[in-house]
Amino acid sequence: MKSAVYVKSGEVGIANVDRPQIVEQDDAIIRIVRTCVCGSDLWSYRSEDTAPDTPNSGHEAIGIVEEVGSSVTTVKPGDFVIAPFTHGCGECDACRAGFDGSCDRHVSDNWSSGVQAEYIRFQYADWALVKIPGQPSDYSEGMLKSLLALADVMPTGYHAARVAHVKPGDKVVVIGDGAVGQCAVIAAKMRGASQIVLMSRHEDRQKMALESGATAVVAERGEEGIAKVRDILGGGADAALECVGSEASIDQALGVLHNGGRIGFVGLPHYDKHPLGSTFAQNTIIGGGSASVTTYDKQILLKAVLDGDINPGRVFTDTYSLDDINQAYKDMDERKAIKSMIVV
Amino acid sequence: MKSAVYVKSGEVGIANVDRPQIVEQDDAIIRIVRTCVCGSDLWSYRSEDTAPDTPNSGHEAIGIVEEVGSSVTTVKPGDFVIAPFTHGCGECDACRAGFDGSCDRHVSDNWSSGVQAEYIRFQYADWALVKIPGQPSDYSEGMLKSLLALADVMPTGYHAARVAHVKPGDKVVVIGDGAVGQCAVIAAKMRGASQIVLMSRHEDRQKMALESGATAVVAERGEEGIAKVRDILGGGADAALECVGSEASIDQALGVLHNGGRIGFVGLPHYDKHPLGSTFAQNTIIGGGSASVTTYDKQILLKAVLDGDINPGRVFTDTYSLDDINQAYKDMDERKAIKSMIVV
Repeated sequence: MKSAVYVKSGEVGIANVDRPQIVEQDDAIIRIVRTCVCGSDLWSYRSEDTAPDTPNSGHEAIGIVEEVGSSVTTVKPGDFVIAPFTHGCGECDACRAGFDGSCDRHVSDNWSSGVQAEYIRFQYADWALVKIPGQPSDYSEGMLKSLLALADVMPTGYHAARVAHVKPGDKVVVIGDGAVGQCAVIAAKMRGASQIVLMSRHEDRQKMALESGATAVVAERGEEGIAKVRDILGGGADAALECVGSEASIDQALGVLHNGGRIGFVGLPHYDKHPLGSTFAQNTIIGGGSASVTTYDKQILLKAVLDGDINPGRVFTDTYSLDDINQAYKDMDERKAIKSMIVV
Repeated sequence: MKSAVYVKSGEVGIANVDRPQIVEQDDAIIRIVRTCVCGSDLWSYRSEDTAPDTPNSGHEAIGIVEEVGSSVTTVKPGDFVIAPFTHGCGECDACRAGFDGSCDRHVSDNWSSGVQAEYIRFQYADWALVKIPGQPSDYSEGMLKSLLALADVMPTGYHAARVAHVKPGDKVVVIGDGAVGQCAVIAAKMRGASQIVLMSRHEDRQKMALESGATAVVAERGEEGIAKVRDILGGGADAALECVGSEASIDQALGVLHNGGRIGFVGLPHYDKHPLGSTFAQNTIIGGGSASVTTYDKQILLKAVLDGDINPGRVFTDTYSLDDINQAYKDMDERKAIKSMIVV
């Protein structure tokens, strides 16, 4: 079967590899229908250190169950499913608390990779997979995009809002205008935020966020950006959703909050330490980590997509075939695409 | 009037100083009825660097309003009040969010000090003071102790539970068996925790906590202590209340939680940085800072004390006159007293 591989810095190609097989009783083999490129995939794409023929790090997909292990009872061959990038067991303390992105049982192997391919082996399938009613042909292309967004970016944006305890009436600032930031805007609106300010310097991304529920955009950064946000909100924000992962963006988040504000951070941290001691005076509450994809999809997000209440699929601005995956990476790397979708 | 002063390392004495006067419209002059020694006061007591005649750092008191500034309308001379160590304005974003311990308006001067004295000037009195029904003579000595606990330690223990979102059914671990830790046990019980484990090596403090609602105590520390807690809880805790302020106790808190657990830290941090990046994989939510003393007293704690539902005053194990303040410090420093109360 075809599978994307990193060829060299700045190049992704297609390799022919063996089709995966069931290994464990809780595995499923899934035929991929739609997959996509994540911002985090660009790290390997850009790196000079990635060895040739390294399997792709793609981890977002929807597809059809081809085969299941002997202990899988919740899905059967032929079912249309979301394949979350996380693999919660559904039974441990973390999963029961709604944190399947950090499942206590699957600590070291709780994330998918290699799903930019025709087939994948999906581990811990029984609880983690999310069944979609019907078949792909029952849905419009726009709806398929929104269903694909439920594999990662929409639950991740929702996670930021959830761990920051965004509640009705809150004034919320979203830092990061990429796919996750866009979904964080949607999540803040779902949870009843009264004002949502997106920090963004790109007109197309500003426009998308304003259509999704953002009430204002701020292009400035640093102290100037913080001052502008405070001016718009008439004071500090109740919550800041940090969807980048840099120390500068965490500092931006801290800066826009009133004392006693809350940060949800879902950008994978690209910094070693942050001064927790210094947040004592500001009484900041900070939470973050991998999204609870299965939990949020089952509890709220799948229904919201199917009911047409939210349209996270709009983050997929460009579509490619699996054979054209190099262009899909290139266009995201050059910021021509917010997020590239792959039709398999 | 008499006021405690730091004489030299290991010695506190009484000085005669001018009685404070109203300076600002929002001031009140309060005649102290009961005050006490805080663990944080021992830093100046122990320090070799504290200059002679340094005013005391005491910040917890109950007393009678003697005089008020022209803008104070909520209390009048003769009223019996709790003098919170915090001075929230009641109107800024932070206060409206229930974080008057980090009032946005009084950022640099939001804490009392010098209240181990006969009279104090209390700034920002109008909203921050908490009126107690009746007069001191209407209350038993035990009740006066509990009312005094509402100036700091009980709201501080409650703050840990609040920012850690302790909710009914939660498994909670309290780290620190001093006055704040004891009050955190009370707070966790008030908020419906099903299991409360206190980490403590002192038999008298273990006993006090067990009488206040702790369901188990663990004397071990480090990895051994973490393992014992997990054994008792049958897994990780939902919330850890860190009431010490050392890096070791934060690490203890992180260690006892399941992934997706929550830390409330109220021990003033005695560390510079904590690895926030490393909490991403555990999806930990961390909050902490100064307690919202006025908010909690007005909303819930004063009623709970007056109704006899909680008895935080038991943390005052020893009582002294103002003239004997050196002994009050000494006994706390030598851990003979959990907390020393001063009758003025």
